[in-house]
Amino acid sequence: MPRIAERNNQELRPVRITRRYTEIPEGSVLIEIGKTMVLCTASIEDRVPPFLKGAGKGWITAEYSMLPRATGVRNQRESSKGKLSGRTMEIQRLIGRALRSVVDLSKLGEKTIWLDCDVLQADGGTRTAAITGAYVALHDAVSFLLGAGLLKTNPITDSLAAVSVGKVRGEYLLDLAYEEDSKAEVDMNVVMTGSGKLIEVQGTAEKEPFDRKELDELLDLAENGIRTLMGYQRQALEEIGRPVIC
Amino acid sequence: MPRIAERNNQELRPVRITRRYTEIPEGSVLIEIGKTMVLCTASIEDRVPPFLKGAGKGWITAEYSMLPRATGVRNQRESSKGKLSGRTMEIQRLIGRALRSVVDLSKLGEKTIWLDCDVLQADGGTRTAAITGAYVALHDAVSFLLGAGLLKTNPITDSLAAVSVGKVRGEYLLDLAYEEDSKAEVDMNVVMTGSGKLIEVQGTAEKEPFDRKELDELLDLAENGIRTLMGYQRQALEEIGRPVIC
Amino acid sequence: MPRIAERNNQELRPVRITRRYTEIPEGSVLIEIGKTMVLCTASIEDRVPPFLKGAGKGWITAEYSMLPRATGVRNQRESSKGKLSGRTMEIQRLIGRALRSVVDLSKLGEKTIWLDCDVLQADGGTRTAAITGAYVALHDAVSFLLGAGLLKTNPITDSLAAVSVGKVRGEYLLDLAYEEDSKAEVDMNVVMTGSGKLIEVQGTAEKEPFDRKELDELLDLAENGIRTLMGYQRQALEEIGRPVIC
Amino acid sequence: MPRIAERNNQELRPVRITRRYTEIPEGSVLIEIGKTMVLCTASIEDRVPPFLKGAGKGWITAEYSMLPRATGVRNQRESSKGKLSGRTMEIQRLIGRALRSVVDLSKLGEKTIWLDCDVLQADGGTRTAAITGAYVALHDAVSFLLGAGLLKTNPITDSLAAVSVGKVRGEYLLDLAYEEDSKAEVDMNVVMTGSGKLIEVQGTAEKEPFDRKELDELLDLAENGIRTLMGYQRQALEEIGRPVIC
Amino acid sequence: MPRIAERNNQELRPVRITRRYTEIPEGSVLIEIGKTMVLCTASIEDRVPPFLKGAGKGWITAEYSMLPRATGVRNQRESSKGKLSGRTMEIQRLIGRALRSVVDLSKLGEKTIWLDCDVLQADGGTRTAAITGAYVALHDAVSFLLGAGLLKTNPITDSLAAVSVGKVRGEYLLDLAYEEDSKAEVDMNVVMTGSGKLIEVQGTAEKEPFDRKELDELLDLAENGIRTLMGYQRQALEEIGRPVIC
Amino acid sequence: MPRIAERNNQELRPVRITRRYTEIPEGSVLIEIGKTMVLCTASIEDRVPPFLKGAGKGWITAEYSMLPRATGVRNQRESSKGKLSGRTMEIQRLIGRALRSVVDLSKLGEKTIWLDCDVLQADGGTRTAAITGAYVALHDAVSFLLGAGLLKTNPITDSLAAVSVGKVRGEYLLDLAYEEDSKAEVDMNVVMTGSGKLIEVQGTAEKEPFDRKELDELLDLAENGIRTLMGYQRQALEEIGRPVIC
Repeated sequence: MPRIAERNNQELRPVRITRRYTEIPEGSVLIEIGKTMVLCTASIEDRVPPFLKGAGKGWITAEYSMLPRATGVRNQRESSKGKLSGRTMEIQRLIGRALRSVVDLSKLGEKTIWLDCDVLQADGGTRTAAITGAYVALHDAVSFLLGAGLLKTNPITDSLAAVSVGKVRGEYLLDLAYEEDSKAEVDMNVVMTGSGKLIEVQGTAEKEPFDRKELDELLDLAENGIRTLMGYQRQALEEIGRPVIC
Repeated sequence: MPRIAERNNQELRPVRITRRYTEIPEGSVLIEIGKTMVLCTASIEDRVPPFLKGAGKGWITAEYSMLPRATGVRNQRESSKGKLSGRTMEIQRLIGRALRSVVDLSKLGEKTIWLDCDVLQADGGTRTAAITGAYVALHDAVSFLLGAGLLKTNPITDSLAAVSVGKVRGEYLLDLAYEEDSKAEVDMNVVMTGSGKLIEVQGTAEKEPFDRKELDELLDLAENGIRTLMGYQRQALEEIGRPVIC
Repeated sequence: MPRIAERNNQELRPVRITRRYTEIPEGSVLIEIGKTMVLCTASIEDRVPPFLKGAGKGWITAEYSMLPRATGVRNQRESSKGKLSGRTMEIQRLIGRALRSVVDLSKLGEKTIWLDCDVLQADGGTRTAAITGAYVALHDAVSFLLGAGLLKTNPITDSLAAVSVGKVRGEYLLDLAYEEDSKAEVDMNVVMTGSGKLIEVQGTAEKEPFDRKELDELLDLAENGIRTLMGYQRQALEEIGRPVIC
Repeated sequence: MPRIAERNNQELRPVRITRRYTEIPEGSVLIEIGKTMVLCTASIEDRVPPFLKGAGKGWITAEYSMLPRATGVRNQRESSKGKLSGRTMEIQRLIGRALRSVVDLSKLGEKTIWLDCDVLQADGGTRTAAITGAYVALHDAVSFLLGAGLLKTNPITDSLAAVSVGKVRGEYLLDLAYEEDSKAEVDMNVVMTGSGKLIEVQGTAEKEPFDRKELDELLDLAENGIRTLMGYQRQALEEIGRPVIC
Repeated sequence: MPRIAERNNQELRPVRITRRYTEIPEGSVLIEIGKTMVLCTASIEDRVPPFLKGAGKGWITAEYSMLPRATGVRNQRESSKGKLSGRTMEIQRLIGRALRSVVDLSKLGEKTIWLDCDVLQADGGTRTAAITGAYVALHDAVSFLLGAGLLKTNPITDSLAAVSVGKVRGEYLLDLAYEEDSKAEVDMNVVMTGSGKLIEVQGTAEKEPFDRKELDELLDLAENGIRTLMGYQRQALEEIGRPVIC
Repeated sequence: MPRIAERNNQELRPVRITRRYTEIPEGSVLIEIGKTMVLCTASIEDRVPPFLKGAGKGWITAEYSMLPRATGVRNQRESSKGKLSGRTMEIQRLIGRALRSVVDLSKLGEKTIWLDCDVLQADGGTRTAAITGAYVALHDAVSFLLGAGLLKTNPITDSLAAVSVGKVRGEYLLDLAYEEDSKAEVDMNVVMTGSGKLIEVQGTAEKEPFDRKELDELLDLAENGIRTLMGYQRQALEEIGRPVIC
């Protein structure tokens, strides 16, 4: 059974990373993976949350949201519902945790970097696209701080990207689109560093349990996809303001 | 005192209207006026709010939101605060009312069209840009309904655009940027139809009261600006998918 | 078509302003315009909101609310719904802005004056009645501060009143009752100073757009109504504790 | 130690009950006891809460609120806090329970009567004033239903009034003003029927525990006060629209 | 008509008090009365609420909650509803008030003791069981403070227990189970001290008003029940860690 | 470095599973693992959530909460904060998903089974203890339905248990206590079926990234721990009402 848009099972959808998408934030990256579009901005704040006050270190935190019509059916805004859904909270906790894992917070000083990931359009893989894009926005914010003399040394310890993989109708697929994701037997999100190590592995049996061999197949697939995404991130970081089309 | 970016007092900032900015919604328009960027989507829902049930007519409603880093200083999300600010409510009520004024709701049938106006970047005039862009998105959603045979006749009765004007340091200015707006003595938002009639006039003495003559000066200025914006809307509606750069 | 209670198109409903309606607040005014009854209290607080801390100036703010059975059909309390409606927020922002426009905040010192406008009964024009009554309550609170030696000079720079006007079935009417308002083609709220200048003009095409000539007709009508209201305010301010029946 | 306003320990403050204080509700009573002012309205709704659907009987419910400046220091509105305080909930549960105890709900049919008790000014005893006033408003709403032929028989089974009593500096006092209440060793609210039976007894040792004899003293005092209040209620119910000054 | 589980009208259900039910809190008591099970923990916090700051005294406060399936039909959690019910607020205010009445807060120093009463299973009398159990937990927390040298003198001035009584089908019953409570004509909660004085008396006519003689009958019944409960408390306080089965 | 309570790295803490801990729910299980205590109840409701209406199948959902003093420092209740934390939402989504994976929802009919997991005391591993205990409670609820003839066939397709594992100071540890968890370099929660397949794998680099070999070590450890837990579950399911001490 061919995949949508005729790609093979080990292939990512087309990726496009646009830095300086908006002018105001210290980092502003539009990442497009297939139809999925996430605007990731990085904002610097000169203070830390209460639990870190006086600890002489910084903080990285993330917020995630979808525009109401990012999806096929319009969703009610969480601002008008008056509360965040469990899905939103779970995703923004994941993004923040992932980004913090490649930053030496003690080198950041008493600063918070906010990574806002707003999904303009959703076609699967929004949380992993958000992590991949947010890393680039974080990189720009840190460059800004270094350029302005507000940081002496670079607190980023490694690069970072993420991808989804899954088992769909018995086949192992990289980078699931929404249609594929909704039919997956197993669904996994993997976050890795540039040095090839794992940061997060979240595998879920959506329809049937999986064994250790299947887990390994999926991790291999994810590892390859993430290496390709890291190439796109590097390319984007070399050219400023021009979209990197892949 | 020259204006930012060297425009004269009667001049709009550069305007860019991109239709089909995202693929999923029935209408999806990115409107850029100077640095202000608003994504306006139109979504069709096959039911009406409770107060219209059984009345045999439709409804048009709007929601407005700013991304947290649309502005120079990051704002907390209204979804995490758990409630909408007065400013947001006031603006989305204005947008909805303005759009309804050019639609014959009885011709729409028992449908709701949601206009979601999300500010990606804010440099003054976001509410009037939202109205101007939402009109184009509404137009696309109605074309979709007509094309699909879901509407027999066009319920749109007139075109619509909006602009801000103000008195700043004694001069009458069209299309205030944020810096100008924050210093304005008088600030006015004007919504007009294609036939040159007024839909909304909201004039506020921010620093000193104004007289009837000044009100007239500002209305003249707004009228001219709105006519220019309507030219851009028409151009955009002729070409699909390509941005109309003005 | 005669108006309710046989008044002519340029006529206000009976107006009654009672100062010291309750004893506790620094200013407490019951304003009755026809059946519309609004209790406006002014309360002095010895601090300013966070955004003004250390700025050496004061603040004026307003809150507006309707008792659940102010209207023909009982409304659910906003306290039990857990949030303010857009209408409430829009109105209280208007009242606060209007009152601030006639106060030199730098003369007020680091104080906040709260104007609470609670609608005991609603028959149209509650927001303009609230502004007209709140001005009198503010006046009393300032007199209290001057009398107690807590202010050296009067920070009030001008007097202030407001009225609604509209076009109903082709006729221009002053001071719309609820029944008239619900049928209006155009509806406008106008706030003016004692010196005859405009503070706010909010005109809305409820049913059909209006032209500049119509705007002028409505502004003339409003101007006359406001002058009459200012006469009642002056009378009330001369007599303490006795209702001024007009 | 003499009481405020020179009354003796067994004396109520001046009582004033004004029926038809506002015109719109089916019952609308302003009750003033000393400086305490509570507006009690009764509203009829043609349905019952979900738990009574189809049970063939009606419901009586109450809501209680204080205007922000009913008290010496301005309180934040519960609508802007987004939730009701425990005190408010406790009081409105008490009022509803008390009123239901003198109504045969099976005779009311599938109707709800809402009793809204809004405190315009608070000087102690607001909950008992609310019960005493709400009974009169309920009476008027029932008269309205009987007069309109919407009820065949009167569902009210007895009259009802309430008062506070307390032990202050060793003396037993009727109808505590705020100053007295805040110093009370024991504080008790008592609700009684016209036939002299008890509906609620809520006695609290604020500063020191009390014995059975003291409980009896306080109940005697309350019983006398309630009989006097019932006289005022009867007087008010005889004359319509004219305040009954006592 | 015999009572459930064949007890007579003046008899408590079986009582079991287990101290140190959980290990972490300073006081942790599981109280079981019939099927009713309430876990009462006492937690010490080294600060006081804002209204007591600098007053040199401490505070005792209580929170009450039911597990969703404490009852026959599962209740929605108040945390997912986003607000506390009136019933919960009323009960936790009662528990806090009762416990404070036997503590000399000025001897506690600037500390707060939180009494959390979580109902694991509910079969009537949860609020009175909570008070009776919370007293024991408070006792343990105070012993902890005395033992650790954090308090010099014991601030507890008397012991405390509570019970419910009621009139059901014309009979006076002690310690109502849920089934009995739901049929009660009169329902009363009584809180008493070890010295035999009253702290709270809350009597409510659920179905028919009561007279002074009936009030006295119920108070006699409550007094006896409370004396028995105090015996169980004393026994429990003598043995640590072993449940006291009565 | 020896572990707390002298267990070795591959050893679980003492486990105790008490069925019918409370009498009212269809399933009620207290699971204790070391000091961690979670009360898991199963409640049957005769309807399904809106998105399943008419689909002819059932639903399993979970809620998770901690008592305020389950932990060393008292936490504010989520009911009084008015919202659930991200942590709570993430955990209850995990529990629900895990349990659903071993139930054939189409065999359940239009019923919802609620699994409420309330943490009475927390010393690490509360979410995995909740899954392990909730499985037993679910089993009891299903037995109840089968026994009452409300289900024809058993919808449970496999057994289920969960455990946490982690890398702490370079060593691989099973079943982390709170102290260990807070120092872990890598932390993983694993959910498995009785047939030895994986349901969820959630591995997080808390302090340093991990490689595939380390992932395998941790999965081996988890697999062994889960097999042991399943033995305890089986034992508990054989004896009713008696705690199974392991």
